[in-house]
Amino acid sequence: MEYYGASIGKLIEALSALPGIGKKSAQRLAFHITAMPEEQAKGLADAIVEARTKVRFCSSCCTLTDGELCPICSSSKRNHRQIMVLENSRDLAAYEKTGRYDGVYHVLHGAISPMLGIGPNDIRLKELLLRLQDENGEAAADEIIIATNSTVEGESTAMYIVKLIRTLGLPVRITRIATGVPVGGDIENIDEVTLERALSGRTEL
Amino acid sequence: MEYYGASIGKLIEALSALPGIGKKSAQRLAFHITAMPEEQAKGLADAIVEARTKVRFCSSCCTLTDGELCPICSSSKRNHRQIMVLENSRDLAAYEKTGRYDGVYHVLHGAISPMLGIGPNDIRLKELLLRLQDENGEAAADEIIIATNSTVEGESTAMYIVKLIRTLGLPVRITRIATGVPVGGDIENIDEVTLERALSGRTEL
Repeated sequence: MEYYGASIGKLIEALSALPGIGKKSAQRLAFHITAMPEEQAKGLADAIVEARTKVRFCSSCCTLTDGELCPICSSSKRNHRQIMVLENSRDLAAYEKTGRYDGVYHVLHGAISPMLGIGPNDIRLKELLLRLQDENGEAAADEIIIATNSTVEGESTAMYIVKLIRTLGLPVRITRIATGVPVGGDIENIDEVTLERALSGRTEL
Repeated sequence: MEYYGASIGKLIEALSALPGIGKKSAQRLAFHITAMPEEQAKGLADAIVEARTKVRFCSSCCTLTDGELCPICSSSKRNHRQIMVLENSRDLAAYEKTGRYDGVYHVLHGAISPMLGIGPNDIRLKELLLRLQDENGEAAADEIIIATNSTVEGESTAMYIVKLIRTLGLPVRITRIATGVPVGGDIENIDEVTLERALSGRTEL
């Protein structure tokens, strides 16, 4: 990119390393940044450094947060005996947006995938098992809602977790979020596997 | 976004202020950044600050660059008597990619648009006129290629520039890039105005 100066070229390169940002968007963003008010550009740079250096895993649920505990785990308004297991923090944000869940979460940071070489020890599973028992060996939760994705990896992770929890022999209810036709979905356009699941998971009216 | 910590929320907000980046992409980028190697995150932040503080307009062609003159204006390999007039630096990058133009450029940073309240004084037109004459009042260029966009604003800016240069009475050739069917374009899907222009601009074979 010798037709810009070196610093624009460097910025374009750094931006295009981000996911979902190609050469062209990176170029558009870079030119936008050079035309930004100086404090806004500095603010963006500071936010990047701050997020990278301050953010770590919540010591309870493993989601990304600033302090020792995330806002949800430290809230007394949440039901700490109902734990929803998710693949990542973005899924947590999606569930929080519904505003209809008042339990807590556990973020695995991935799903088991032999294809990609991701085993049970590569995700935050151990941390989940540790949370399920208190120091006396009693169950520290009443319900585990498994909300991994409806993909091959998500499903097999779900099955693996169920098996693992059962071996602990704790009186914990284990549930899985429903698979079915999404709201607004056109039956004609939905794949057979989903339809079959929607049928087998039908509920009484 | 109280369900993340404050620093992720701040980063998401800063990122979603960028053009073409919505709340969801900003969130995806923010989580990606928190998981980046620390020096890469710092590198991105530094590139932003450096580009914002170092980059300015080339004193000759007004494109965005680091130093006093951009690499193109300071190159002795380019024909400095052929000037292509463009709306912005992204257009310059697009022409440079063709590798088939060896003249220099002039970047207007916009187009005249009465609708948006952008007048001739809001774009880098004065700088263009200054470049066309040397200190003795002689023409400092042989050809001006007007390559503003084929939009209403681009076309009226082109017409305005032609009139303005003619009033200087310089022996300068003024040309406009061709409008027509793009390579690979399907005639059946192309609008009538473009087709009409392609017809009236037809060339001898």
